[in-house]
Amino acid sequence: MKSQQRRFFKLIKYQEALSRMQKAIPNRVLEDEKIRSIISLGRVLAEDITAERALPDHDFAAMDGYAVKNQNIQNASVNNPIKLNIKGELFPPDHPTKASITDYEAIYVACGAPIPNGADAVVKVEFTRREKEGIIVMKPIEKYRNIAQIGEEVKKNEIVLSKGRIIRSQDIGLLVALNREFVKVITKPKVAIISIGDELAEPFGTPSNKTVNNNAYIISSLVEYFNAEPIILGIAKDNMDTIKQMVQSGLDKADIVITIAGCSVGLKDYVPDVLEIIGKPGIIFHGVSLSAGKVCGVAVAQEKPIIMLPGHVGSTVATFYLLVTPLIHMQLGLGFSDFLPIIKCILDRKVTAKPSIDLVLPVKVYNQARKYHVIPLKKHLSILKNLVDANGYAFIPAGTEKNKNDIIDVKIFGGLEFFNIMS
Amino acid sequence: MKSQQRRFFKLIKYQEALSRMQKAIPNRVLEDEKIRSIISLGRVLAEDITAERALPDHDFAAMDGYAVKNQNIQNASVNNPIKLNIKGELFPPDHPTKASITDYEAIYVACGAPIPNGADAVVKVEFTRREKEGIIVMKPIEKYRNIAQIGEEVKKNEIVLSKGRIIRSQDIGLLVALNREFVKVITKPKVAIISIGDELAEPFGTPSNKTVNNNAYIISSLVEYFNAEPIILGIAKDNMDTIKQMVQSGLDKADIVITIAGCSVGLKDYVPDVLEIIGKPGIIFHGVSLSAGKVCGVAVAQEKPIIMLPGHVGSTVATFYLLVTPLIHMQLGLGFSDFLPIIKCILDRKVTAKPSIDLVLPVKVYNQARKYHVIPLKKHLSILKNLVDANGYAFIPAGTEKNKNDIIDVKIFGGLEFFNIMS
Repeated sequence: MKSQQRRFFKLIKYQEALSRMQKAIPNRVLEDEKIRSIISLGRVLAEDITAERALPDHDFAAMDGYAVKNQNIQNASVNNPIKLNIKGELFPPDHPTKASITDYEAIYVACGAPIPNGADAVVKVEFTRREKEGIIVMKPIEKYRNIAQIGEEVKKNEIVLSKGRIIRSQDIGLLVALNREFVKVITKPKVAIISIGDELAEPFGTPSNKTVNNNAYIISSLVEYFNAEPIILGIAKDNMDTIKQMVQSGLDKADIVITIAGCSVGLKDYVPDVLEIIGKPGIIFHGVSLSAGKVCGVAVAQEKPIIMLPGHVGSTVATFYLLVTPLIHMQLGLGFSDFLPIIKCILDRKVTAKPSIDLVLPVKVYNQARKYHVIPLKKHLSILKNLVDANGYAFIPAGTEKNKNDIIDVKIFGGLEFFNIMS
Repeated sequence: MKSQQRRFFKLIKYQEALSRMQKAIPNRVLEDEKIRSIISLGRVLAEDITAERALPDHDFAAMDGYAVKNQNIQNASVNNPIKLNIKGELFPPDHPTKASITDYEAIYVACGAPIPNGADAVVKVEFTRREKEGIIVMKPIEKYRNIAQIGEEVKKNEIVLSKGRIIRSQDIGLLVALNREFVKVITKPKVAIISIGDELAEPFGTPSNKTVNNNAYIISSLVEYFNAEPIILGIAKDNMDTIKQMVQSGLDKADIVITIAGCSVGLKDYVPDVLEIIGKPGIIFHGVSLSAGKVCGVAVAQEKPIIMLPGHVGSTVATFYLLVTPLIHMQLGLGFSDFLPIIKCILDRKVTAKPSIDLVLPVKVYNQARKYHVIPLKKHLSILKNLVDANGYAFIPAGTEKNKNDIIDVKIFGGLEFFNIMS
C-alpha cells in the first residue's frame, strides 16, 4: 500500500499545479438563486441588469434656485439687470407639475423640484436679488444649466450592471432606484471540510489528551470569508474506509471537498490512496514545490475538485489560499484567480529561499509614514502564532535572496487586514 | 426661521470638522457581548486573551522519522554508520506515551506523535536506511531537532490576542486551539437612518411619481459593511415636528443617528433647525469645504452624534465615508479613523480643484501590468452611476491641479473593491 501511495507523490511547480487544475477541473459556474436586492451585498450578480426606467425619470432642479427661460436673461449684466416676476414655488413632491412660465417670469424651485413648463434653466438663489414680487438677475445662463435631465444618468433599457459583478452598497442603491426588488446571484459554493487523524478531537469538549481540531474552524471561517458556504463534516479516523466514506459524503453534499492532514508520506497517510480509487480521473498532482505546503495535492471525482491540505496549520492555511480560493472564485463565475490585493512593500530583513523550493512566507505588513514595510515572520515548526501575527504572504522563488530595503510584492490575506495595516 | 438656520451654515475645512467632532463627541466605546468564538470573524475583541494552556502542550515529532538519543549518533558519518535498534512505532493518538528508549535504540514517530522518554531528537526517515530490526544512521543531529517542544508556540499565561483586535480566521484557530469557546467582543454600534423629504417613497411599492428612497439602502448597506447595525427608521416629511420626533426616536434606539437630505439652505431644509433645539450642545458645524458634500454637518445631543448627510447621492455617500466611518470605528474601540486602504496610483487624466473648495472625486482604480492606474470619473449633477463605476476617492486640495501620469493617493472604498481592481 505505501509504495503505491508514494508513487503519486512528486513535486511540481505551483504554476504547473494551477495549470493542471484548470485543465482537469470542470469550469463549472454554479446555479443562480433569486434574493432580495437590499441584502445582496458581496454576492455575485448572475444576470445583466437592464434599466426598466430612465434615471432620472423626469427633469428636476439640481440646485435651489429660480426656473427661468434662459433666452430672457441672455443679455443680463451688472449694467443691465433684468427683472423677472415670481409666479410661485415648486418642491420635489410637486412632480408631476402643470406649472408653467412665460417670458420674464420665474418660479422658485427647491433642489429636486420639477421644472415648470416653459423653463429651460435654473438660476441659483445666490445669483439673484429679491425685489418685491420679483427677482433681479445680473448674469446670463446657458440652457439646461442646473437642471438634471431625464435619462442623464441612466437611459431606459441601458445595461447598468453586468453579470459577474460583485455587488457593492452603491450598486444596491442603483437596483433600488430602478425598482428591482429581487436579483439573481450565483449560489455560494458549498465546501465540505474533512479533518483526518486518530489524534483529533472536537473542540470545547471535556479536556483530553487529544489534539483539538482547530484547523477545520480556520478553514471554515476562511471559506465563509471568501463568499462560500462551509460544511464541516467532522473528523475521519486514520483508515481508508472511514476516509473514503466521508469524502464520498463530501462529494454528495458539496461543490468542493477539502481534506485536512493525512496526505503526507507517513505510514498512516491514507488520503492519497482513497482519492486514487474514489473516482476518475483521481489525483491530478500530489506534491508542490512550496514551503510551506509541500504535501498538498488535488484530485477530481464526480467532476468535483478534492483538495488535500496538509495538516500543519501553516501549510493548511497557505495551501487554502493557493489552491482553494481560485476554485471558489471560478465557481462563482469570477475566474480562476485568488483576487488577493497585492501591495509593494519595503523589506525590513533579508530573506533567502532554499535552492530547491519556492518559499511562501507569512509576513507582517505595516504602514510607517505612509509607506508599507514588511517584516518576514520567523519560520517555525508550528506556526499558528506566525499566522496570527501575519497579514499576508511573500513569495520568494527557489534559490533567490531578497535583501533589506528591497521592494517586494506581498499578497494581503484580504480586506479585513487593512484595519491592522492602517493602524 | 430661515435666517436662523442660515446662521449655522459656515464652511470649514474637513480637518477642522474632524477635530471638532473629536472634541465634541464623547469618545465612547460600546459595551461588550459574549459570542461563540467560531462565529467571531470580523468582530472587535473586547478582552485580552490569555493562554490557559501552553501550545503545544506536549513535545511531539514535527516530521515523520525516528526518535533517538542524539548523543548516540554524534559521531555518525558515511565512514562510521551507526546502527540503532527499532523498538516500536508511535502515532499522534499515542499521546501520552509511556514508551521509552535507552542507548542505541530508536522508535518510529509519525509526524505529530509524542516523543518517547529518553529521546531528544528525531532523525527524518530519508536520512536513515532500514536494516533488519534496525536503522542505519550516517550523520549526526543536534539536540531537539525535529521536535516541537511544549510551549514553543504559546507559553501558558501568555497574552496571545489583545483587546481591540479585529478577529480574523487564523485568530479563531488560535482561540479554538486554546479551548476558548466564547469571547467578548465589542457590541456593534447601532446606526439609525432617517430619510427626509415630502417627495420620497419607499421602494418596490406601487409605481408613483415619488422619488424612491434608495439612499437609505445604500447607507444601510454601508453601515453593515463597516461592522455596525443599521436601523432604517423611514421617511420624515419636510416639517420640524416629524423630523424632531424621528431624530428623538433615533437617539433613543441607536448610538449614531444619520439624517439624509433636508440640510441644505433651501426653504424646506429643516434638519439644522431641529438639531439646534433637540439637545445640547446641538450643531457643532454645518458646512464643510468639500465638493461633493458641502452642506453636511454634525450635531451632538444626549451625548450621541447626529450626522447630517446631504441628499444628493454622491454627497450622501462621500460624507458617510468622511464623517460616519470614523465614528463607527471609534465606538468599536478602533480609534477615530476611516481605516480605508490607500493605494498610490498613476493618474490617467488631468484633474483640477476649484480655488475655494477641496475636491473629493470618485475614481476608478484598475490594474494594468501590475501597476495601479486611476481614472477620475466625470463630475455630474446626479452621480449614482459615478459611484457605481467608482472604487475609491481621490482628494484634490482646493486650488491644486494634478496632471496626467502624476502619482496620487486613492482611498479605496473597502476590501470588496479588490475583486474589481484585480480583475
